[in-house]
Amino acid sequence: NNNFSSSSFQNVSSEDLKTSGYKSKPFSGRSKQLEAVMDQIDSAGFIPENLIERETKWFYNSLGIDDVYFGRETVDGIVSHIHALYSAKLDAYSRGVFDKPFLHHKREGEDHAVYFETSNYNDISNETHEQRIDDRYLDNNNLDTKYRVESFTSPLIFGSNKNSNDINIRCHFVYKNSFAKDKVDWTTTDLSLIGDSTFLEITSDHTKKLYGEVIGEAVKTTGPVIKHFSIAHSNESRVIIGYRTKTSPRYNSALTTLCDFYKLIINRKYVENFANGVTVISMYISQRDHTDASDLSIYQVIKEASLLYSIPNNFFQDQFVKSELSLQECIYAHCGSIFVTHFLNRLGPEYNSLLSLLDPSKSIAHAEVLAKLRERLRSETFTQSYILEILKSQKNIVQQLYRQFADIHYIQSSIEKTLSYQRLTQIPPIENDEDFENILNRSYPQNEHHSLVLRALYTFNKAILKTNFFTPTKVAISFRLNANFLPRTEYPETPFGMFFVVGSEFRGFHIRFRDIARGGIRIVKSRSLDAYATNLRNLFDENYNLASTQQRKNKDIPEGGSKGVILLNPGVAQDNPKDSFVKYIDSLIDLLIDNRIAGVKEPIVDLYKKPEILFMGPDENTAGFVDWATLHARQRGAPWWKSFFTGKQLGGIPHDEYGMTSLSVRAYVEKIYEKFNISDKQITKFQTGGPDGDLGSNEILLSKGENYYAIVDGSGVIVDENGIDKNELIKLAESRKMISFFDKKKLSPKGYIVLVDDTDIRLPNGHIVINGTNFRNTFHLKIKEIFGPDKIKLFVPCGGRPNAIDTNTVHDWIDEKTGKCIIPYIVEGANLFITQSAKLILEKAGALIIKDASANKGGVTSSSLEVLASLSFNDEEFYSNMCLVDGKRPDFYKQYVKEVQKIIVKNARMEFDALWVLRETTNKPLAVLSNELSVAINKLGDELAASKELWEDELFKNKVLKSALPELLLNKLGYETIIQRVPEPYLKAIFATKLASSFIYTNGMDANPATFISFYKNFK
Amino acid sequence: NNNFSSSSFQNVSSEDLKTSGYKSKPFSGRSKQLEAVMDQIDSAGFIPENLIERETKWFYNSLGIDDVYFGRETVDGIVSHIHALYSAKLDAYSRGVFDKPFLHHKREGEDHAVYFETSNYNDISNETHEQRIDDRYLDNNNLDTKYRVESFTSPLIFGSNKNSNDINIRCHFVYKNSFAKDKVDWTTTDLSLIGDSTFLEITSDHTKKLYGEVIGEAVKTTGPVIKHFSIAHSNESRVIIGYRTKTSPRYNSALTTLCDFYKLIINRKYVENFANGVTVISMYISQRDHTDASDLSIYQVIKEASLLYSIPNNFFQDQFVKSELSLQECIYAHCGSIFVTHFLNRLGPEYNSLLSLLDPSKSIAHAEVLAKLRERLRSETFTQSYILEILKSQKNIVQQLYRQFADIHYIQSSIEKTLSYQRLTQIPPIENDEDFENILNRSYPQNEHHSLVLRALYTFNKAILKTNFFTPTKVAISFRLNANFLPRTEYPETPFGMFFVVGSEFRGFHIRFRDIARGGIRIVKSRSLDAYATNLRNLFDENYNLASTQQRKNKDIPEGGSKGVILLNPGVAQDNPKDSFVKYIDSLIDLLIDNRIAGVKEPIVDLYKKPEILFMGPDENTAGFVDWATLHARQRGAPWWKSFFTGKQLGGIPHDEYGMTSLSVRAYVEKIYEKFNISDKQITKFQTGGPDGDLGSNEILLSKGENYYAIVDGSGVIVDENGIDKNELIKLAESRKMISFFDKKKLSPKGYIVLVDDTDIRLPNGHIVINGTNFRNTFHLKIKEIFGPDKIKLFVPCGGRPNAIDTNTVHDWIDEKTGKCIIPYIVEGANLFITQSAKLILEKAGALIIKDASANKGGVTSSSLEVLASLSFNDEEFYSNMCLVDGKRPDFYKQYVKEVQKIIVKNARMEFDALWVLRETTNKPLAVLSNELSVAINKLGDELAASKELWEDELFKNKVLKSALPELLLNKLGYETIIQRVPEPYLKAIFATKLASSFIYTNGMDANPATFISFYKNFK
Repeated sequence: NNNFSSSSFQNVSSEDLKTSGYKSKPFSGRSKQLEAVMDQIDSAGFIPENLIERETKWFYNSLGIDDVYFGRETVDGIVSHIHALYSAKLDAYSRGVFDKPFLHHKREGEDHAVYFETSNYNDISNETHEQRIDDRYLDNNNLDTKYRVESFTSPLIFGSNKNSNDINIRCHFVYKNSFAKDKVDWTTTDLSLIGDSTFLEITSDHTKKLYGEVIGEAVKTTGPVIKHFSIAHSNESRVIIGYRTKTSPRYNSALTTLCDFYKLIINRKYVENFANGVTVISMYISQRDHTDASDLSIYQVIKEASLLYSIPNNFFQDQFVKSELSLQECIYAHCGSIFVTHFLNRLGPEYNSLLSLLDPSKSIAHAEVLAKLRERLRSETFTQSYILEILKSQKNIVQQLYRQFADIHYIQSSIEKTLSYQRLTQIPPIENDEDFENILNRSYPQNEHHSLVLRALYTFNKAILKTNFFTPTKVAISFRLNANFLPRTEYPETPFGMFFVVGSEFRGFHIRFRDIARGGIRIVKSRSLDAYATNLRNLFDENYNLASTQQRKNKDIPEGGSKGVILLNPGVAQDNPKDSFVKYIDSLIDLLIDNRIAGVKEPIVDLYKKPEILFMGPDENTAGFVDWATLHARQRGAPWWKSFFTGKQLGGIPHDEYGMTSLSVRAYVEKIYEKFNISDKQITKFQTGGPDGDLGSNEILLSKGENYYAIVDGSGVIVDENGIDKNELIKLAESRKMISFFDKKKLSPKGYIVLVDDTDIRLPNGHIVINGTNFRNTFHLKIKEIFGPDKIKLFVPCGGRPNAIDTNTVHDWIDEKTGKCIIPYIVEGANLFITQSAKLILEKAGALIIKDASANKGGVTSSSLEVLASLSFNDEEFYSNMCLVDGKRPDFYKQYVKEVQKIIVKNARMEFDALWVLRETTNKPLAVLSNELSVAINKLGDELAASKELWEDELFKNKVLKSALPELLLNKLGYETIIQRVPEPYLKAIFATKLASSFIYTNGMDANPATFISFYKNFK
Repeated sequence: NNNFSSSSFQNVSSEDLKTSGYKSKPFSGRSKQLEAVMDQIDSAGFIPENLIERETKWFYNSLGIDDVYFGRETVDGIVSHIHALYSAKLDAYSRGVFDKPFLHHKREGEDHAVYFETSNYNDISNETHEQRIDDRYLDNNNLDTKYRVESFTSPLIFGSNKNSNDINIRCHFVYKNSFAKDKVDWTTTDLSLIGDSTFLEITSDHTKKLYGEVIGEAVKTTGPVIKHFSIAHSNESRVIIGYRTKTSPRYNSALTTLCDFYKLIINRKYVENFANGVTVISMYISQRDHTDASDLSIYQVIKEASLLYSIPNNFFQDQFVKSELSLQECIYAHCGSIFVTHFLNRLGPEYNSLLSLLDPSKSIAHAEVLAKLRERLRSETFTQSYILEILKSQKNIVQQLYRQFADIHYIQSSIEKTLSYQRLTQIPPIENDEDFENILNRSYPQNEHHSLVLRALYTFNKAILKTNFFTPTKVAISFRLNANFLPRTEYPETPFGMFFVVGSEFRGFHIRFRDIARGGIRIVKSRSLDAYATNLRNLFDENYNLASTQQRKNKDIPEGGSKGVILLNPGVAQDNPKDSFVKYIDSLIDLLIDNRIAGVKEPIVDLYKKPEILFMGPDENTAGFVDWATLHARQRGAPWWKSFFTGKQLGGIPHDEYGMTSLSVRAYVEKIYEKFNISDKQITKFQTGGPDGDLGSNEILLSKGENYYAIVDGSGVIVDENGIDKNELIKLAESRKMISFFDKKKLSPKGYIVLVDDTDIRLPNGHIVINGTNFRNTFHLKIKEIFGPDKIKLFVPCGGRPNAIDTNTVHDWIDEKTGKCIIPYIVEGANLFITQSAKLILEKAGALIIKDASANKGGVTSSSLEVLASLSFNDEEFYSNMCLVDGKRPDFYKQYVKEVQKIIVKNARMEFDALWVLRETTNKPLAVLSNELSVAINKLGDELAASKELWEDELFKNKVLKSALPELLLNKLGYETIIQRVPEPYLKAIFATKLASSFIYTNGMDANPATFISFYKNFK
């Protein structure tokens, strides 16, 4: 029984089936070389003569080394190996230990390595040579030469006695690859181009055909391709696995451990690397002792090889090696312990009582709580290692929890009784919560920490709605969780849905607050172990906060807020974020696509029972991967592939090219001019973020007659009180250069430039800047000092760190004589440049501040309309209207971009008017009103989305949708087509958001039914 | 120029016109009597002989006494008069004062009185005899015999000197009337039946015709009828005034003062009383010195006689007498000072800072405010007398303020220049607020109290929207005020409209919180001067609080809350409240009826410019006057007369007869039974308010199988733990008897009755009741003691003083062992039997309490539907369907009552369900929910009423109205007729209330637009 396609087994000679498929061409100079070796040993004179021949022949014949090796090895090399082996034997003899594994010899060169070790099966205590081969040669990221490995295992005959209770010796030979061409495209599959020269010489055609099939499939999926067949009339069978090179560190050595777990012998193992970035491992496996259950265990190995691929080494490795836990239990416990680390460690009940009680001087009872809190916070008892320790000491309960997990999510197709299934049935199941509590109470050692951890694991099981844990071809393990387990006191708004992904080099979350939600995917890197520990701790909180900020920001687009984060493991994983990104996305798609149509892996259990669709965008460290994600979704047959990611090449609308965010910023600026009827010519402007940033450049290009006095960017500061030369700025902005490229001759006599590397620069006013970095970092706090109050009228931050102005530094923006803010108009382009409390202080001091959540909405609106377009078009319309046609943007695309820009400006102006009116009626500061506005719109939107009658009122619904959908789209496709293509939940979101925002923008936040009725009736 | 109808001047002989119309039939025994008088004086021997004849003849001839007197007077009487007059002259002679008024002689008998006085015109210092005649004979309420008065004025010739600088002597003769029949109906006008026997004898036919005309009109109006004509060729003219007897105390003597003010001589005055309750005063007036302006001043007297009628003696009487102020200015100042008394005296700014600051220990600044507050509250500086003093000392500004008032509300028809108008023009006008401030600053003496009072008067002027001040036939003075002058901090909700009425014996207010509002009119009596002072101070607050309680209570009827209060002056006014009620209502109607159609007084200036309509009901001390008010409104041609008052005989639905209030109480009781599925047979009940009250009796009649344990009423307490015999109770309830009529034999051995007058009664359980009053007053606080906890299941208070259970006495209702309330179910029929805070405590202790605002709504609902019926019917439909036809209720009426009853029960059940659901979802106590419910319904109702779109949505509007209007009415009149008969504001109120209440009853208080939409769409 095998799972190769039958085509690769026609006309194959049986003789072919028995051999290893690696015919070793005979080495003609073999015996001559043998003589030369014996002579040199003799002349060295370290080994007594009468032993020279015996040691040499032992080396040549009974280590199962084939001629390939001897053909490449020099006589010197062979001699030094025999010497080393001899000295090891002698050393062992002198300590009188000849029954334990003593041989531990390695020789490592740049392009070649040899390893010898003795091993027996019941104690693999130390790091084996194989793991070292993985780290140094196969999985080593900072060298890009590839290697192939041959390794042989044979029993050790030693000295006079026969009964070596199965000590045998393993040899590994590592060779540098040489390919026909170095760079080949990752899709080419024909072996002559991608194979290693030696590989091509010594393999039979049958082997090539098998490998070809494996490689062929490997390039089409992201996961491993696992094939096997058993050789007739022998208890040996072959497993061939193909996968992308370096995407699963230590996978190779983990496979060995897996076979050891199932008591299988690996007689030979070949690791072949191909130029197209595919690695093929083929193992010749036979049963140690001949029980009949063997092909079952081989079957098991094949099934778990993919699990192993996604997590080659888990935290419970040693339990696995000691086979106290099965691989599945280990990986389950691995994922569980990560879950527990993140969610057990909330601040617990004491912290909550802090929030509610909060006054130590009122009475002694409170002081008690506070003291306990302090003590609790100080000793963080649940470190990841402590959690692992607890889980390891409670193996049985972990197994029971795994069984509960498997009972729900593991569908074994009916016909076969797998080994793991038999293991499963011996574990007593957990009936219900109560039964679980009893198990806890009976568990020994009875202590409160253990049951906390186990309860958390139990919560994990109950929160899982679906998982790809049991699918055969996954690249990472993903769980769709029901977020209700999150404590309300810490997470006031329960997310609508959340995903939890564990990979070999990362862990990640995805949170969304509405069914239809959108947000970026960010990859979190850590520069040191301590930094990693911090990032680890804040991972979920950060994800949660980003998602809810997004939620507020998305108030007048149909999608709610969501966010995904990927935390790379410390070490090598930091260097190629893309792998983790690929696995994260792929394993999420596992849980999203309807799992009944073609090209889908096996069906998974779905407790959520409703189709889900995620809308994502680029974020920190992922901007370059969005195209891949889009194509990958298409290739996996995801019907929503077009709208999967925004900001993509394929039909994406790049924000910076069309200055989408800047458009909403500008709309607010113009509204301010209108309101105070100022003309832009009399405006003096200060901007952080230079012509190289996409906000900075567009801000300059759209600034019309505004007169720049100062700009700060990554390279330094430029100041000119006669106005910075505009043309020069525009030149820089168009070519996206930093101001360090500003042509100094264009400075007026009062102008100057200070770059970050400058030191001791004398400014025109005589002041000396001792160092540029400092000057640049604190320039935005020295405006009052440099320009005095009310010289600069407008400040548009387009860059700079968040919280650049907070309560401690806000006094630098207030003129203490008048108590007024030194710059009257501020439109916050950059995210959170000014903290909320500093905003309130500045507004009280008379500044007009447009909050980031309002000012830089352009981006989200544009992405949202990009999504809408890609949901409305079918594939070829999508190509012809949104993608480059012969490298040029189609007309529809250009007009659509214009319409998106109009919509952005319109929304910004509407929001400004609403905020203005609100401020006049309520006298609240804009920073507060902006929040209240978005909360009110979200609340009303949710209520409207939840009401069926409105939705079933066909003609009203159509009226609303028609006014919400971009005209261009309507004319292009017609209303009817759009609404059966766009998924209904999305249409509902459009409907509810349109209604809520236009109602509140026109009628203010006090939504009383009567005004809503009149709004409803004369809605056109 | 006269304003008699011409018919009473045909064929009248000129000779008739010259005489007084009172021909005195010559007294045949005159000279014989004269002799007898002289003899008796002689024999008494007190007057020297040579003076006897002179004194006697002086008495007979030169006092202008006609023979009527001599015919009735005895010789003794005449002798004693002459003696008394002689001794007064002698006394004056002996003090050597014969140039001042010294004669002050009176003789008073039961059925006859004589008065002599000398008077000159420039000092009337003392109470004149006329006022005494008014008090003792004409306006005396506690004797119902009527009198007629003749009074003559003639110059005094005395002793030898001629040059009496116009001292003249006045004689008044008072006679008891004798009529043909004593009791005649107040509408009969033919003189022979209603005239006095002497009157009929001695008057000419011309006089009778004139009087007949006057009387004829007087019986048709409530105010005075004023006629006059001037006699040709003499500077004398006659004024004849007719009005209801005793409706204007001291009107008679005030008329004399009025003539004195305009320098007119009253040669003769006749006061005639008629059996039909009409008094006719006729005055013969001539000009003192012959200036040509006389007929102007006579004209003025005629115009102001009606003003005088409504307020015969005002606070500025002495300024008027000293003619420092004109009558109009006096009456204006009179009304103004009353306004100032009520509204100046708010607690002022300090009190508000108490509310906001309120923490003396925080810092010293607060303590200062508190101290000032204490000082301020202690010395209540603005007593009414202090206000009058200030206004009297600021006469000029008061005159300017009057002018400002007159400029707006006084329309002088174009043709004549009246005297008062000329006075007006000499007073400098007040241009605007600023000008007024300057006047204040220039006024002397410059002090802060004076300007506070004057500013308040100024506010009064600006708050007046319309007034009947300048209409000729008013009975009291009424003002429609704009309530915005009320300070928000004390009166959080500004009334929609308010009326201010000042009468000769009362002052009153009417407040409403919605355009369409309804509420009772109550008359406030005071048992003593101190009580009056207290009532005076709380008058407005009480009115305001009652109106806003009403507002909350009316939540699911279309009308908002309103209330009118009438405070009777201390003294005689306390004895006939009806007069004040009549004047209050009539002067309100002056401002309500459209003043262009017939039977209307002259047009008044209307700054409100929208039609107004008031809906009133009976209240304390006015239950018996509602029929009059209804007929009076009809008679004044008010189109809304049918709906003016509820609870009237004419088509009213009496609450007690049909137990309307009890029906809603019972509906709640039954709902409780349903909810806890208890059957009424296992309910033991306690009730305050006995079978004589209209709540108590109906509660008993509707109590089905409930088992009474105790009842408290005005006469005492009945208790029986085997259940009070139900049949006996029903008998009492049907005959509305107190429990003192309970047949003792029906008591069980454990039953007893304690009446209020009993003392030292031994109860069956051995306890001795020492006095019944005490036992009765505190019985409701001894339930725990007498019955122990949880023996009584239901408590329905149907009577008893408000706040009978408050925070200090609530512990008597809680069982301290269990902390539970001793009676589980309480439905509060009587108003505010339990204070809000006590309700909260009882609910927390486990009691289910239905608040009065919810429980006893039956009454208001029934009144509201009564109003609706009377608005929908035209007159004869109204008679045939709502009024007694041949003493029987028409069928429609009986069915309508049934429908009203069904609606009451339905509303109560709906509210109960809503409250029940709310309590389960919010866990708030019912007492709070009931308030929140009514606030939410009122708020939504107002929003819905204000929205035009809803109202213009014809078919939705019709759907709502059809479901809100009682079916019977719809079938009777058809929808179309109803909506053009019922005024639109009322229909709007119905529409809005129906929508708001049914929405909130079904969807709870959280009115979000989406649910409202679905409610709106499938509203059927």
